[in-house]
Amino acid sequence: MLTANMQLPMSIHLLDLFGTAVFALTGALRALTKQLDLMGAVVLAIVTALGGGMMRDALIGRNPPAAFVDETYLLIAISTGILAFFWGRQIREQESWLIIFDAIGLGVFTLVGAWVAEQAGLGATGIIFIAMLTATGGGVLRAILVSEIPFILKKEIYASASLLGAASFLLFDFMNLSIGLIIWGVVFITISIRLISWRCNYHLPS
Amino acid sequence: MLTANMQLPMSIHLLDLFGTAVFALTGALRALTKQLDLMGAVVLAIVTALGGGMMRDALIGRNPPAAFVDETYLLIAISTGILAFFWGRQIREQESWLIIFDAIGLGVFTLVGAWVAEQAGLGATGIIFIAMLTATGGGVLRAILVSEIPFILKKEIYASASLLGAASFLLFDFMNLSIGLIIWGVVFITISIRLISWRCNYHLPS
Amino acid sequence: MLTANMQLPMSIHLLDLFGTAVFALTGALRALTKQLDLMGAVVLAIVTALGGGMMRDALIGRNPPAAFVDETYLLIAISTGILAFFWGRQIREQESWLIIFDAIGLGVFTLVGAWVAEQAGLGATGIIFIAMLTATGGGVLRAILVSEIPFILKKEIYASASLLGAASFLLFDFMNLSIGLIIWGVVFITISIRLISWRCNYHLPS
Repeated sequence: MLTANMQLPMSIHLLDLFGTAVFALTGALRALTKQLDLMGAVVLAIVTALGGGMMRDALIGRNPPAAFVDETYLLIAISTGILAFFWGRQIREQESWLIIFDAIGLGVFTLVGAWVAEQAGLGATGIIFIAMLTATGGGVLRAILVSEIPFILKKEIYASASLLGAASFLLFDFMNLSIGLIIWGVVFITISIRLISWRCNYHLPS
Repeated sequence: MLTANMQLPMSIHLLDLFGTAVFALTGALRALTKQLDLMGAVVLAIVTALGGGMMRDALIGRNPPAAFVDETYLLIAISTGILAFFWGRQIREQESWLIIFDAIGLGVFTLVGAWVAEQAGLGATGIIFIAMLTATGGGVLRAILVSEIPFILKKEIYASASLLGAASFLLFDFMNLSIGLIIWGVVFITISIRLISWRCNYHLPS
Repeated sequence: MLTANMQLPMSIHLLDLFGTAVFALTGALRALTKQLDLMGAVVLAIVTALGGGMMRDALIGRNPPAAFVDETYLLIAISTGILAFFWGRQIREQESWLIIFDAIGLGVFTLVGAWVAEQAGLGATGIIFIAMLTATGGGVLRAILVSEIPFILKKEIYASASLLGAASFLLFDFMNLSIGLIIWGVVFITISIRLISWRCNYHLPS
C-alpha cells in the first residue's frame, strides 16, 4: 500500500542509474550511426537518458527536476556518451545484450515514473501517461533530434510494455499489495512483456 | 470584464471536450496515413489533442496541468485514438466536416488558452502567445513526431485565425464587454476567419 | 563572488535584447530559405530567440518564464521576424557579420543561463546544462520545426563554446572573482572560442 512521501529502495535507485547508462548508450550509438561529432554523442546520450524524466518533472511541476537534484544522473549520461563515442563503434544497436539491458531500463523507468506520478497525486490515467512518458520520452526526443519517426509509434511492443507495467502498478496498489511486490512486480512485468514480444516477434495491429 | 478566479461556463467546457475529440481524431488519422500501429494512433491522438495545453501549463507553471486534474480529456483522446484506428480508415484528412469541426476546436482552444493566460497574469503579448500555443501546439507536435514541417509554418490562415481570435480577446476585455460577449466573440471570430480563409483559399504572403 | 538575488547589470540586459534580435533574425532567415509564409517566419523567429530560455524556465520552475515577465523580448522577436520576412531576402545565412552577431548572442545567452541556474540553486553539472540549453535550445527547436538535424549535433564548435563559457563561469565563481570579471569573462570566452573555431575551421572529432 502506497502512502505519502515514500522513498524508493536503494536497489531501485541503483537500477535507475543502470537504466540511465543504458539509455545514454543507445543515444550515443545512434549518434555514431548518424556520424555526429562528440558533442552530438553526448547530447543524444543526455537527451535519451534524462529527457523523459525531465519532461515528466516539467509537466508535474517538480522543481528542480530530479536530474538536477542528484547530479549523478547527468554525470553518468555524459560519461557514457564520451566512452561510447570513443570505444563504442563495434557495438551494433541491435545486439541482444543491448536490447535486454534496454528492457531493464524500460522497466525501472516505468516504475519510477508511475511512482513519482502517484506521489504527485495524479489519477489513474495520469499515472499511466507519466510512467510511459518517463520510460519512452527520451527515446522519442532522440528520434526527433535525428529526424526519424520515433519507433514507439510504429513498431514492436515497447511503449505497450510500459503501458502494461504502469497498469499493473495501479492494479497492485488497488489490491493493497506490499510495496516490495508492487515495485518488483511492475519492473518484472514490463521487462518480461518487452523481452517476450521481442523474442517472439509480436506486434500491434497496424 | 474579467476578474480573478473566474470559471468558464459549462457550454465552453463541453465545446472544449468536443475540440479534444476532434484534435485527437486528426492525430489518429495522420497515424493511419503514416501506417503506424495502434499505439502510434493513440500517442498521436493524445499529443495532438493535449500537447498544446500541456506545453501551456508547463510554461506558465500550472501544476498539475489541466489534463491531469480532469482525466476526462485523456480518456476522450485515448478513446478517439482507438476508435479511429479501427473504424477511421474511410475518413480522409481533408473532408469538409473534419475541417469545420477542427475549426471549432481551434476557436475553443484559442479562447481557453487566452483565458488561462489572462488568469495567470500574463501581459498582452504573452496572452496571444499562450492562446496560439494552446490552439496550434498539439498540431505542431504531431508534425514533429512524424517528421513533417508543421503546416502552420507554411500554409493557410490557421495560426493567424488563432492570433486574431486572441487579439480580439484582448480588445473585448479592454472594451469591458460582458464575459459572454468576450467568450463567444473570440470563438466565433476564430472559427469564422479559419473557415472563410479555407473556403476562399486565402493565404499569407510567402 | 555570487550571492542570492543578484541582478545582472543593464549592459548585459541590453546585450540580451541584442542577442534576442539576432537569434530571431536567424530563425526568420531559415523560414525564408524554406519558403515559409509570414507566420512561419514569425514563429521561427520567436522559437529561435526565446525557445531556449522558455525550456530553461519550464525545467527549473521559474514561473512565469522571463519572456512573459518582460514582454520586450517577445516584441523584439516578433518585430525582427516581420522585418526580416519583408526586407531580409538579400541576407545570406552565412554572412560574416551575422555569424559574429550570433556569437555575441551565444555568449550572452550562455551567461544569462548560467546565472539563472546558479540563482536557482543548481549544482555544477546542472548549471552547465542549463547554460547550454539557454544558448542553443532555440536553435535546436528551429531545426526540429523545419525537419533538420540540429547543427549543434554535427558540426562546428558551437555548443562547445557555450560549454566552455559555462565551465569558466563555475571556475571564476570558485575563484571568487568579482561579478564584473565573471560576467564579462564568460561572455568574452564564449564569443572568442566560437569565433576562433569558425575562422580557423576547427571541429570536434566525428
